[in-house]
Amino acid sequence: MSADAVEILSPEQSWELLEGSVLGRLAVSADGMPDVFPVNIYAANGKVLFRTTEGTKLADLAANNNAVIEADSFTSRIGWSVVAKGRARILVDPAEIDAAENSPLRTWVWPKKTINVELDVTQITGRRFIFGSDPEREIT
Amino acid sequence: MSADAVEILSPEQSWELLEGSVLGRLAVSADGMPDVFPVNIYAANGKVLFRTTEGTKLADLAANNNAVIEADSFTSRIGWSVVAKGRARILVDPAEIDAAENSPLRTWVWPKKTINVELDVTQITGRRFIFGSDPEREIT
Repeated sequence: MSADAVEILSPEQSWELLEGSVLGRLAVSADGMPDVFPVNIYAANGKVLFRTTEGTKLADLAANNNAVIEADSFTSRIGWSVVAKGRARILVDPAEIDAAENSPLRTWVWPKKTINVELDVTQITGRRFIFGSDPEREIT
Repeated sequence: MSADAVEILSPEQSWELLEGSVLGRLAVSADGMPDVFPVNIYAANGKVLFRTTEGTKLADLAANNNAVIEADSFTSRIGWSVVAKGRARILVDPAEIDAAENSPLRTWVWPKKTINVELDVTQITGRRFIFGSDPEREIT
């Protein structure tokens, strides 16, 4: 597959894809140990909202609020991936919590106690892939 | 959605799902900054093989070889996610490289220069989700 099969997306294109995503993967790092969690997301206005409960995710974010959310979609022919980096902030202001609870964010798994977290995105990158027809390079 | 909608998978169940996956997300951490990359994977025998080229991924792994690979599959009704943690090792031994090149790993994007990396998994966890029929908790 030639290198031109990977297209670098603009921040605007990347945001458009992220804003259309309901599922992402949150990557965090605590004491140099990376971790990943699938999370439902709602991306808009330079921010990505997600929910969590007491647990590893929250402990990791308390130790180090640098976080990354990746969203992607792949078929055997095409794909894209968007990576948004920033700092995560647990919402504590009642007005912000109220806005988050009334946002279009839908969480598939709904624990009794939820904590709203917002990723303030400082960098977004995206790539689009077109996969070749060389059978050697396709999924077998 | 009730809490019993999340099922904790055994390591054996988690490996079975990971071994059936061709796409994962690699999370790394360099200087406390997490990062995520979609990668084609081949999981077998307690290890996950993937390929990379010179770039951020490789630089991050050289700085800190703690790495995580997550694979998942979601529909609006069911889903699963597996997280494998371990240490990543760049293959340098010609016999190991030869074995990797002849493995069932298929990379959709095929850069001219590839470096084979193996994650020696020390911990694997998995969860299976069954989503409720409450419209409030479904994707809108």
